[in-house]
Amino acid sequence: MLDIAKKAGVSKATVSMVLNKRDQSISEETKKKILKLAEELNYIPNSLARGLSTKKTGTIGIILPDITNPFFSSIARAIEDAANSLEYNVILCNTDNEIDKEVDYIKLLISKIVDGVIFIAGGESSSSVKILKSNNIPFVLVDRYIDNYKDEHGVYLLNEEGVIKGIDYLYKKGNEKIVFVKGHENITVSNERLKGYKYAMNKYGIYDENLIFKGNFNIEGGIKATEAILSKLDKVEAIFYSNDMMALGGMKVLLRKGFRIPEDIRIMGFDNIDICGIFEPELTTIGQPIYKMGKEACKLLINIINEVDIKDKEIYFETELIIRGTA
Amino acid sequence: MLDIAKKAGVSKATVSMVLNKRDQSISEETKKKILKLAEELNYIPNSLARGLSTKKTGTIGIILPDITNPFFSSIARAIEDAANSLEYNVILCNTDNEIDKEVDYIKLLISKIVDGVIFIAGGESSSSVKILKSNNIPFVLVDRYIDNYKDEHGVYLLNEEGVIKGIDYLYKKGNEKIVFVKGHENITVSNERLKGYKYAMNKYGIYDENLIFKGNFNIEGGIKATEAILSKLDKVEAIFYSNDMMALGGMKVLLRKGFRIPEDIRIMGFDNIDICGIFEPELTTIGQPIYKMGKEACKLLINIINEVDIKDKEIYFETELIIRGTA
Repeated sequence: MLDIAKKAGVSKATVSMVLNKRDQSISEETKKKILKLAEELNYIPNSLARGLSTKKTGTIGIILPDITNPFFSSIARAIEDAANSLEYNVILCNTDNEIDKEVDYIKLLISKIVDGVIFIAGGESSSSVKILKSNNIPFVLVDRYIDNYKDEHGVYLLNEEGVIKGIDYLYKKGNEKIVFVKGHENITVSNERLKGYKYAMNKYGIYDENLIFKGNFNIEGGIKATEAILSKLDKVEAIFYSNDMMALGGMKVLLRKGFRIPEDIRIMGFDNIDICGIFEPELTTIGQPIYKMGKEACKLLINIINEVDIKDKEIYFETELIIRGTA
Repeated sequence: MLDIAKKAGVSKATVSMVLNKRDQSISEETKKKILKLAEELNYIPNSLARGLSTKKTGTIGIILPDITNPFFSSIARAIEDAANSLEYNVILCNTDNEIDKEVDYIKLLISKIVDGVIFIAGGESSSSVKILKSNNIPFVLVDRYIDNYKDEHGVYLLNEEGVIKGIDYLYKKGNEKIVFVKGHENITVSNERLKGYKYAMNKYGIYDENLIFKGNFNIEGGIKATEAILSKLDKVEAIFYSNDMMALGGMKVLLRKGFRIPEDIRIMGFDNIDICGIFEPELTTIGQPIYKMGKEACKLLINIINEVDIKDKEIYFETELIIRGTA
């Protein structure tokens, strides 16, 4: 403002009045001159001062495990797109599923007066939710619900049904010995997916707990689980990995050992992350509408912030069986 | 503060004095009671008010093309890690390489009073830089420099040398007909990589401009370029894709058409993104220290913000030839 005042030959107070539209007492000529200079000098108003009086900053936080995981980068992208179209900014926080980091981020976001938080829980995150609630910060849970806080706003997937679709498909293809690689039990979605597996396998009378293996939801997790499967089981017809990253790690091991996919062994993943379609053979998977879920989560949060009437506190999305080359 | 005051049976002013450490006149007993309640009630101080007086918000912006691209998600992760360890927050902005979006984001970031910006240019981004400069916002360019602003703070890769290393390696393996897939000429790094190719091919007297093809820096770009190569050239010994995403798209086409890699055709990429190592065969590539570059960019920016003396305005990183299965 001082730069503009100097060039226009007026006081800083005059410039401030014009730029803040309290300019009734100022001549048209001076107004024009000031507005023209403001544009030339790339003047941008300070929204921080406004935020202090309205208590709204136009900024929301996203808390997620790791942005380098393609699933979360797609969700983050969707949230940022939706936020930007509604003139909100997004602060990114990576927790690595560590609860301490999560709590620290939540405190930091609150101190920065974010208008709301989109929260992909790292595990048993009830302490984080407690802090958000006691500070009256609107929040939306995405993908993973939190025990004791099931009534909060959230955007979720029908995980159980998704796995059932996959087992139905493999069973109809003639597979009965279907191995399942479950994820970490701290993550709610991995328990739901396991429940779907048990339900569907029991339905066909082919459930056998020795077919259940465990891995982390990443490439390494898939590699290790697959090595364990090959060393423990004699013959494997099909492996259902409960997320795509694990399936990609598993395929790597199988291809190296000379298995032909899908001729020798059928593979199914879960998520439908972008890179599923790059590999040869392309991964058959249970797709979730990742981008749409991120977008809806952001819209839901901004509706809460703006106190718009909300019909459903929880939004559930359906999965889709995506048949490609591995099964 | 009001909640604490009510529970402690004191005035809000007393609570404010204690929490803001202007508490000389207040009894130890009252202080203790207030601090204990503050913890119980998850009180978090408002740093916005402080930001208004210090003109520092502890927030920086990252402007990048697309967070779902594994290269940029790795850089963003590194920046966020470094920022967090120095108690800064990061606002994420995806520009899709569109200059208008870039300019809008920069204005928005400035209005939110970010302390600085890390800027991965989408193309001919001099208008964005002009706005940052005229608003005295510290910034650091990453990966892509901007014509007319070569003297600004930046973190870059020695791209030319990287490609030369790759050609040297392929030439020593006996390849002379080395196809090069260049990127879009609006992106400075693609021109540098092309320069490296021309230099190295001329050095061996095997340069032929008919071996140069063009693609966008993504899977689709690699697929299209590879289809063009196969339809225009009779025999291809090796293809050097100037980024990994293109190489992965290219491999997909080649494997589908029945080529064996590396027996029939050698493939080289550039970047060393995380997913290079997932595919079979694993991609041989020119690695850049992506995480390190992001981290250094963030540290450099925060040093500028804090007016620490800076030795080098520009930091250059070296590439590394990473030999895996495709060449």
